[in-house]
Amino acid sequence: MKLASLKSGRDGRLVVVSRDLSRFADASAVAPTMQAALDDWDAALPRLTELADGLESGRHAHQPFDPAKCASPLPRAYQWLDGSAYVNHVALVRQARGAEVPETFWTDPLMYQGISDVVIGPHDPIQIADDAWGIDLEAEIVVVLGDVPMGATRAQATKAIKLIMLVNDVTLRNITGPELAKGFGFVQSKPPSAYTPVAVTPDEFGKSWDGAKVDLPLLSFINGKPFGKPVCSIDMTFDFPTLVMHAAKTRPLGAGTILGAGTVSNRDDDGGPGRPISDGGLGYSCLAEQRTVETILHGKPSTPFLKFGDRVRIEMNDKDGRSIFGTIDQEVVRYTPPK
Amino acid sequence: MKLASLKSGRDGRLVVVSRDLSRFADASAVAPTMQAALDDWDAALPRLTELADGLESGRHAHQPFDPAKCASPLPRAYQWLDGSAYVNHVALVRQARGAEVPETFWTDPLMYQGISDVVIGPHDPIQIADDAWGIDLEAEIVVVLGDVPMGATRAQATKAIKLIMLVNDVTLRNITGPELAKGFGFVQSKPPSAYTPVAVTPDEFGKSWDGAKVDLPLLSFINGKPFGKPVCSIDMTFDFPTLVMHAAKTRPLGAGTILGAGTVSNRDDDGGPGRPISDGGLGYSCLAEQRTVETILHGKPSTPFLKFGDRVRIEMNDKDGRSIFGTIDQEVVRYTPPK
Repeated sequence: MKLASLKSGRDGRLVVVSRDLSRFADASAVAPTMQAALDDWDAALPRLTELADGLESGRHAHQPFDPAKCASPLPRAYQWLDGSAYVNHVALVRQARGAEVPETFWTDPLMYQGISDVVIGPHDPIQIADDAWGIDLEAEIVVVLGDVPMGATRAQATKAIKLIMLVNDVTLRNITGPELAKGFGFVQSKPPSAYTPVAVTPDEFGKSWDGAKVDLPLLSFINGKPFGKPVCSIDMTFDFPTLVMHAAKTRPLGAGTILGAGTVSNRDDDGGPGRPISDGGLGYSCLAEQRTVETILHGKPSTPFLKFGDRVRIEMNDKDGRSIFGTIDQEVVRYTPPK
Repeated sequence: MKLASLKSGRDGRLVVVSRDLSRFADASAVAPTMQAALDDWDAALPRLTELADGLESGRHAHQPFDPAKCASPLPRAYQWLDGSAYVNHVALVRQARGAEVPETFWTDPLMYQGISDVVIGPHDPIQIADDAWGIDLEAEIVVVLGDVPMGATRAQATKAIKLIMLVNDVTLRNITGPELAKGFGFVQSKPPSAYTPVAVTPDEFGKSWDGAKVDLPLLSFINGKPFGKPVCSIDMTFDFPTLVMHAAKTRPLGAGTILGAGTVSNRDDDGGPGRPISDGGLGYSCLAEQRTVETILHGKPSTPFLKFGDRVRIEMNDKDGRSIFGTIDQEVVRYTPPK
C-alpha cells in the first residue's frame, strides 16, 4: 500500500495512492492525517488496505495523483532519529574533517535527532539564507514506526516498522564542523528535510525487503545528472531493527517516529572509497563524500557544494524499473527573511 | 493565564486553570488540545483569556483542579530544544567528566534537541530499567513558542514566547559520557521528561519577567529535602530570545516548540561553585553539579545519583510564596519491559 499527504493545513490530508502512482483515493474517512493513522495503526491498516485494493481494481472513486500537491507523508513529526548505519560514509566524512573515527562506531550505532517540527514537501524549494554554509544533500532510506516499547526486542522492533520512505536530509557542511565540536549534535546544521511523495508499506517490496534492509539502489541526481546509485542493503553495518532497538534502549518511541539509516554509501569493488558514476562507480549520496574521496585522491576537493539554482532529485525504482516512492525534486533557493 | 492538559488519549484535553490552581474550566470549545491552541494562537488567545477571566470571577462553570490527573501541558511535542544558558553548569559538569570547555561556549549557545515524542505527566513515575545508568534530575525553566520565522529578529523571537513551564529533564549520567563522545548529542542519555501541571502566559509574571528572563528561584527537592533554589535570571549567559534566535538561524521553528535554558545554576557569592542548601548555599538543579563540586573540594563525589524509590519535586513560587506552575513530583521506579 502507498500513502501520501496532500498539502492541507499543518498536517496534510491522508490519501491512498495507486501502485503506479497515477491516481489517489481520499482516506480521510479512515483517518484525517497520516499521524492519526499511525496513532491507531492496527485499526486503520485493514480499512486503508481495503481502499487501496479498491483503487487498484478501479472500484473506488479516484483522482489523478500529482506529487507537486503533496506535503511529505508526515508534514510534521514528533521525532526524526537518524542513525549512521553506513559507517563507510561516516569514516570518510570524518576523515575529510580531520576528525577521528572511534572503534565503537562499528559496533555502537551513531544516531542523532533531527528536525521534524517543520518538514517540507517533496517538490518544495530548499531555502537557505547563505550558500557559504556549504549546502549538501543526503539521500537516505527511512522507516516510519508505530509505538515501540522501551527495551524493545528485535521482534518488537521489526514489527514496529510500518512504512518506508526516502529523505533528502539537507546538511550545511560548513556549520557542521563547529557545531559537532560542541558535542550536542546538529541544530543549526540541519535545515528542514523533504521526504518522497509517498510512504510505502514493507509488503510492497516483495523480496527486496527482508524485514531489516531494502535491497535496491538509491538513486540521486544533481541538475539531472546521475550522482549516486548505491544499494541500500550493502555496507549497511546496522539494519533497521538494530537501529530501532538502539533508539528504544532507555525509553519508548511514540507512533510516527521516523527513523533513518543515514547517508547510503557503498565501498568500491576493490574495498576503497566509491568512484563517481561517470567513472563507472556507484557514485555518492552526498557531496561531502565525493569531496572527501577527491581529497584522498588529489589532495583537495574539486566538486563544489550546492549553489542557488541547483536541483536535487532522489528516487528508487523496483526491480522492473518502476518508481516506488515518486521523486524528491527540489531546487536550492536563496531565503529572504520576512520584514 | 494558566493552561493545562488533562490526561486523555495521546494529546490530552485542554483546560484553563485558575490562578490559585484550585479549579479549572474546560477549554475544548476553543481548542481540543494545547497543540491546536498553539497552532492558531492569535485566534485562541482572546477566547482562552475570556474563559480565564470568567473562571477567576466565578462566572464560568468549573471543577476542582487535580494535578495528578494532568498530562504535561504538551503531552507530546514536535520539538524540544534545550540550550545550556547557565554556562557555569556546563563548565562544572564538563570538569567532572574531564572534558574541556571551549571558549566559544560563553558566546555561542550550546543547544541539543531532546525527546518529545513521548512526554510523561508531572506526577508520573520516572521509569528506568537500570539504576547503574546514573539517574539524575535536571530542573529547568522553559518556554513554549508560536511559529518562528527562519532568521528571526530579537523582536520576533521575543514575541514568539507564548507560555512558560518548568521541566524535569531526566538524564542518565553514566550513558551521557560515551554517547556525547560520539558527537551526535543525546539519544539514549535522555529518557522522557515531565513538565509542570500548568503552562503560564508571560503576563502572569508581572515584574518577574522582563521579556527575556524569569527573576525567581527554581525550587528542587529530593525526598522532600530542599536541594536547589538558584535564581533563573542570575548567571543566565544567554536569555530566551537569544536562544530562540540561535535555534532559528537556519530554519523556521514550528508552533509548539519547547525551548529550554538548561539546568539552572548560580555561582556562589564568592564566585566559586555553589554550596548545598544545608551549608547556606543556593544548592543545585542536578546531582551531577553537586557531585562535581564535591569532587573539586574533596577529590571525589559523595552524593549518589537517584535510586529506585527516590522522589524528585520541582516547583516555583511567586514573590508572595504562591505556587505558579504546580509541582512536578515524581518517583524513580524500576522499569520492566512488557512480554
